[in-house]
Order: sequence, then C-alpha cells, then structure tokens
Amino acid sequence: MTLQAKPVRLSTADPQFEAKFKALQHWSADTDAAIEQRVADILGDVQQRGDAAVLEYTARFDGLHAQSVAALELSQADFKAAFESIPEAQRKALQDAERRVRSYHEAQKKACGESWSYRDENGSLLGQKVTPLDRVGIYVPGGKASYPSSLIMNAVPAHVAGVAEIIMVVPTPVRGSVATGGSGNTEGSAGATKGERNELVLAAAYVAGVTRAFTIGGAQAVAALAYGTATIPAVDKITGPGNAYVAAAKRRVFGTVGIDMIAGPSEILVLADGSTPPDWVAMDLFSQAEHDELAQSILLCPDAAYLDAVQAAIDRLLPEMPRAAIIAKSLNDRGALILTRNMEEACAISNRIAPEHLEVSSSEPHRWEPLLKHAGAIFLGAFTSESLGDYCAGPNHVLPTSGTARFSSPLGVYDFQKRSSLIEVSQAGAQVLGPIAAELAFGEGLQAHARAAEMRLK
Amino acid sequence: MTLQAKPVRLSTADPQFEAKFKALQHWSADTDAAIEQRVADILGDVQQRGDAAVLEYTARFDGLHAQSVAALELSQADFKAAFESIPEAQRKALQDAERRVRSYHEAQKKACGESWSYRDENGSLLGQKVTPLDRVGIYVPGGKASYPSSLIMNAVPAHVAGVAEIIMVVPTPVRGSVATGGSGNTEGSAGATKGERNELVLAAAYVAGVTRAFTIGGAQAVAALAYGTATIPAVDKITGPGNAYVAAAKRRVFGTVGIDMIAGPSEILVLADGSTPPDWVAMDLFSQAEHDELAQSILLCPDAAYLDAVQAAIDRLLPEMPRAAIIAKSLNDRGALILTRNMEEACAISNRIAPEHLEVSSSEPHRWEPLLKHAGAIFLGAFTSESLGDYCAGPNHVLPTSGTARFSSPLGVYDFQKRSSLIEVSQAGAQVLGPIAAELAFGEGLQAHARAAEMRLK
Repeated sequence: MTLQAKPVRLSTADPQFEAKFKALQHWSADTDAAIEQRVADILGDVQQRGDAAVLEYTARFDGLHAQSVAALELSQADFKAAFESIPEAQRKALQDAERRVRSYHEAQKKACGESWSYRDENGSLLGQKVTPLDRVGIYVPGGKASYPSSLIMNAVPAHVAGVAEIIMVVPTPVRGSVATGGSGNTEGSAGATKGERNELVLAAAYVAGVTRAFTIGGAQAVAALAYGTATIPAVDKITGPGNAYVAAAKRRVFGTVGIDMIAGPSEILVLADGSTPPDWVAMDLFSQAEHDELAQSILLCPDAAYLDAVQAAIDRLLPEMPRAAIIAKSLNDRGALILTRNMEEACAISNRIAPEHLEVSSSEPHRWEPLLKHAGAIFLGAFTSESLGDYCAGPNHVLPTSGTARFSSPLGVYDFQKRSSLIEVSQAGAQVLGPIAAELAFGEGLQAHARAAEMRLK
Repeated sequence: MTLQAKPVRLSTADPQFEAKFKALQHWSADTDAAIEQRVADILGDVQQRGDAAVLEYTARFDGLHAQSVAALELSQADFKAAFESIPEAQRKALQDAERRVRSYHEAQKKACGESWSYRDENGSLLGQKVTPLDRVGIYVPGGKASYPSSLIMNAVPAHVAGVAEIIMVVPTPVRGSVATGGSGNTEGSAGATKGERNELVLAAAYVAGVTRAFTIGGAQAVAALAYGTATIPAVDKITGPGNAYVAAAKRRVFGTVGIDMIAGPSEILVLADGSTPPDWVAMDLFSQAEHDELAQSILLCPDAAYLDAVQAAIDRLLPEMPRAAIIAKSLNDRGALILTRNMEEACAISNRIAPEHLEVSSSEPHRWEPLLKHAGAIFLGAFTSESLGDYCAGPNHVLPTSGTARFSSPLGVYDFQKRSSLIEVSQAGAQVLGPIAAELAFGEGLQAHARAAEMRLK
C-alpha cells in the first residue's frame, strides 16, 4: 500500500472550527507515575552512592560494563580523533555552523548580557552585575535522536557567556541492552554494537569545545551532574534534550541546579500568503514531521487553491523521502492545513498556538511580523527555511515547545549567566530611604528591618 | 529565663572548619510526600471542575463560604478604599517605594530588555524580538507572611515589561479554619476573624496596579491561575511566595505556565572588615533572623575582636526586639560568626554559599565586589542596610535563595518578557547557508531538512 500524508483540512469559517482546532492542539505532557518512581529511586541512589550507583545503572540499562566511572570518561584526544575521522565537508560544515552560531550569540551578549549601573540623584549606585555560571552539564541523547547540532547550540552560548567548564554526558548503549530494547532509561541506538559512539557528536564536541565528557545517560547521568560524584563534578545547570526519564530527572533536580525548559514534541507553523513555491512549503512541513511521529506541522493560508497546491506537492514529494513513514504518520495524526479568512486572522491563530518555529512565508514578512506575539523563532520570507535556522543561520535551535513560547525564550547566553543586584546607598541616600523603609517595615511588623534603616539616619 | 542569641563561632583556621561549615549550610528542601499527593489531587480537581472545586477548597481550608467565585473577587474600589483607609505616612511610603522600584526596573528594561537585530555580510537579518507576557498571576500569602512590599516587587517589573493583565490571589482565611489552624494549605492569619483582609496589601495593590484579584489561596489558587476556570482567567506565569503547598503546586504546574524560583528560607551574609558600627551589623543580622526561625544570618570577618563586639551588640539589642524569640531561635540554630584569615578568604567562602543577600560592610566595598561571583543582591558599604534594599532602594527583593544564586537571578523585567528569534535569510544568504545546513542534516539523517535547504539554492 502506498504511504499517504493527508493533514486534516480545516477552515476558520467552519462553525465547528473551534472544537476541531482545540482537538488539534491537544497534546498531553502527563508524566507516567512508574517513570516518576523509578527516576526518584535512581536519583536518590546516585546521590547516596555516587560512582558505584552510576556504574551499576550504566551496566544495567546500557549494557556497558566498566570498572570505574573514570573508564567511562572521553578524552580531548577522543574528540580530536573523531573530528579527524569525518569527511572534510562535515568538518567544514561543523566549523562554519559553530562560527555563525558564536557570532550571533556574541551579538546577543552585547545586546542583553552585560552589567549595567547608574547613580541616582542622591549619589547611590544601582545596577546589576552579570556573571557566567561556573560549570554546566550538557545532556546529549544517545541513539537516533543524537544531534551534533544540538551540542553546538548548547555549548556555544555557554562559552560565549564565559562558563569555565562544560561537562557533557552522552550514553553509548550496547546493542541488546535494556536501553536499546526501548525499556531502559537511556535512549537506544538500534545500530549500537558495543558502547558505540557517534563520531559526529564527538567531532562537534571538538569544534564546540567541551571540557570533560562521560559516556553515561538517563536519570543516572542527570543525578551525577546535579549532585556530583567522586569522579563527576557537580554542575550549576543542566541543559539539553532527553527522553521521558531524562525529562523527569531534570524536573526533579530543578532547584538543586538550574535546568532549561522541558521540551515537548517539535512543531512548525507556516503562515503563507501563497507567494512561496508550494514544494518549498511542503518540504518545510516534512522537515518538522520527519523528527518524530508526535511532531506537528501546521500551514495557515487564506488561499484554498494554495493549500491544494501544497497538498499536491506533499503527495508528489513524500515517496522521495527516506523517512516517509514517520512523516506520513506525523502529518496524518497531528498535521493540518487551515484555510483562514485573511493573513491577519492567520497571525491571530498563530498567537494562540505560540509555535516553536514560525515561518512567515510571505512576500511581505515585515508586514505580518509585528502582529506575531508568541513564537520561539520567527523565520521571515520564502528563503528562510527552518532548516537553515536549525543548523547554521546563527540563532539557537533550542526553542520553547508546546505553547511555552507564551512565557519562555530560546536558549541563549542569558541562560548561562546570572545577575546580582548592586546597591550602594550613599550617606545622603540613606537619609531619604531610611524613613520610607522604616514606615513600611513597621507596617509589616518587621521591627529589626525598621531599626536597621533608622540606625543609618543622622 | 532571658532569651539569648549565640550564633556559633567558627574559624577557618580550625582543622574541623570544613565539616562544621558543611553542617551549617545544610538545609533540606525535601518535599513531603503527603503534601505532594494532596496538591496533585487539588490540581487535578480544579482542572476538571473549575470554579466549583475552588469554592469547595476555599470553604474547607479557609472557612470562607461563598456562593460563587465571583463573590470572592475584589474590586478596584476595594483597593482604593484600602489605600484611603491607611495613614498618610504609609500611603506616601508605598508610593515612594513604588516610584523608586519602577525607576530601577525601567533602567533594567533599557539595559537588557529591548529587541535587537543586525544584518550579516549577506544581508540576512538576525536578532531577537522582546515582548511582554500577556497575563501573569501573583500569589500573595495570607497571614503573617503577607507583605505589601512583595506585591510591589512582583507587580512593578510586570508592568514595566508591558504585561497587560495582572491577576492577584490572596487568601483571607477565617479564624478557626483549617488554614489558621496550621494544617490547611493556605497560610493562616492568627488574627483573622471573618475572611479578614490585609489593608496594607490591598493599598499596595492600588499603588502597584493589579488588574483583578481573588481572595483565594493555596494549591487551589495556583491551579485556578494555571488552568483557568469559568471565572478566573488562565495566566502565562505565576510568581510570588507561598507555603509548602503553594510551592509544590507551582512546581507541578511548571510547563503549563512559567513560574519564578521556588524560594527557600531567607539568608544574609555579611562580609565585614570591622569598619562598620557593630550595632548596625547586629541589627542587619536580626533583620534577616526575624523573618523566620529557619532564616540564616552569617557574619564573616578577619577580626576576632570585631566578632566579639557584634556578639556584645546582639546581647544588648536582642531584648529590645519585639520578635526576639524568632531572632534568637534563628541565630542559635542557623546563625554563625566566622573568623577568616583575611577578606579575600571571606569573599571565597561567600562564593561557596552564594547567598541571597550579601552585605559588603567595608570601607572599601569596591575592592571586594569584583571578587564576589555569586549572590542575589550585593549591598555595598556601611550605609546600605539590606532593609533599604528590601523596601525602596529600587532593585527587586525577590532573590534566589539556598545557593541558587549560582545559577539564577533576582526577579526582574526579564521574567515578564520572552524573546523570539528573528531570522530573515536573504537569497544570497540562502546560497551560503544551504550547503552547510544540508551537509549537517544529511549527517544527522534528516533528509527533509537537507532538501528544504537545497531547494533554496539557485
């Protein structure tokens, strides 16, 4: 039977649109109680027993047996060898991508990541000092979802921020292990034979710069980074994608360390005015759908004939795609082609979805951009395919998913920095501020606060 | 028996210092499984049954019976009446504080909260658009920990960021209710007689600007804000302090909405070179200790005689303090006076603690400030008592606790904004980026990504 990809066709003029739109948006991030309990146990065990527990879980879940955690450490020589083993074209592409991503994040640091201060009318100094985190951990999944580009996107902003140490963890499960069987807590690699390493990931570690790296994964790796062990240093923040076990572990260690957002399935929303070749838009929808059967690709357009043309392009191009089965399932289950009354309405619907990736595939992208309030990244104009942004345009590809762009931001230099308020009240300033503070402190019943302010009065 | 406050005396020269220092730092944020389960049940119930569940929990825990959630809404007239009912001096202090806090946060927005972009050598546009959150919820505790200053510190940065709607929730439990008995999930107010309101909080809502407010609290209020009910609008982020139930609820709804940091007990660390009057330092230690028996106050100084002088000041001033019992317990259980070899060592220890509040009580504060890497807020010089910063210097008093200043920042305008990456690849840019993206995409096995990039090649 031929594979078919038929995203649902909706129209905002349909009286049932709201209900259908809600059903389309539904995606449950509910956690599994069994996973939660196993993760809690692993975290507690690693916190108590350190290296010994990490070794046991790595043997049990990944089938990787080692005498010590030190034996699981990768060296800078491993990274260099991996870099030298890959084709010249890949080496150059990694370096070009790293350079462009770094250049963008340096501009970001200049725009929003520098210390600032001023003096008020009483000569008091007020401001914020911006400093890097000392040490961060980057989780790199093993197996099929192991993306060297993700390592670049996590490591580069950390470097630009000034983070001194970057600790990478990447599981290398053995074929036949619990992990590769799909029931373990690390991601399986169907092709792994013996703790198989992804050379492109190691080459990316060479290019992006990683201080130390361990071939461990799952909740045990998150625990080791959060609490530290005799061999693995505790970090201040853990970033990077992972499976349900990793996500649950990150959520639990939040507070002991910082974490990035817990990512849901990836999504793209394309706003089209009909001016972009339909093949390009079809392929952009595919590029999201090929990630994962749960990925979501939505096209909004006020022109029904254009939606037909994109569907025709989908039908024509699908058979050419190596990942056609995943693409078809994703588009059939979660995709949609939505006819809107006009582009303004399309923008309003986009704001309701708050998509991770938002392509404005229009000849007038700057006409619509001001109407777009919530999105992880906005790709303007027909030449800006999401994939260019995913790899090398410069901006980060770690973006808020599942509508969280309503309140969160792309990974950036700011995620690897923190701020300390600076306050230096002058003697004159203390005379002005003291009575205000004392009044409010007495009102709150905090008399020592009030007295501390009053003692500074002449 | 006379109350005594004797913080433990430590010296870095003591061979046992490391062990004693670790014991001092120990504070467990472990969650209580029973609380977790009750909170999970309440969240699920409010998500399913909305207003009806909110009403039931408010009746059960707060003893506050209402026919509808609408009846629990406070009006702008309530805020205005409260403002007009308080003494002139309090009105002026609230307004002065709000003005100074706003002015600081406006400077912060200018320094790090504006959109930016640039064009690269191929004419491609790269940048970030910064936009406010649409709607946020502020949790204000009821009872003894109900601080109008906190409302200002949460609402003002939201306003400066451009948030359109601020929804406040504040429980008003009835005397004798489960909440006031201490076993409920909202904070009890010992003095409450019948859903008693804190006029100073309502006056602060008038001054700081709150769009809507409901007299609900606990996990049910967090659930209502996160999921929305027929009456209470769903928000994009929830900030503000609360008890263990509120903290557990915020942690659970994280991802559906944004949250601020989960706060632990408050702490102050004072670095003293001996030049500040000992009474001032003693009172600053008190002002932390009076918050809560779990609060922590630590003084580091290279001068043993000065530590003695501060202890003498503590002994002399303690009997004058209305909250002497809380202060004494906090200082006896968690306080410390630590003799260091020199100020450099004191700074290094401070970095290990990463305190919420850090006073540099020195005649040369700018000599030491560059050595201080991790702190929520740094108060420079003898005139800068923490209490001035708590109320009105301008910087935010919502600060990272329990060592989380290693990786997180004061509440700020940036917490009420989010960023969207902007990417507009020019036709020329697509020719440069396409081959790089395609090479990496093929390397990751994502052929649709590669094809999407290649289609844009001429």
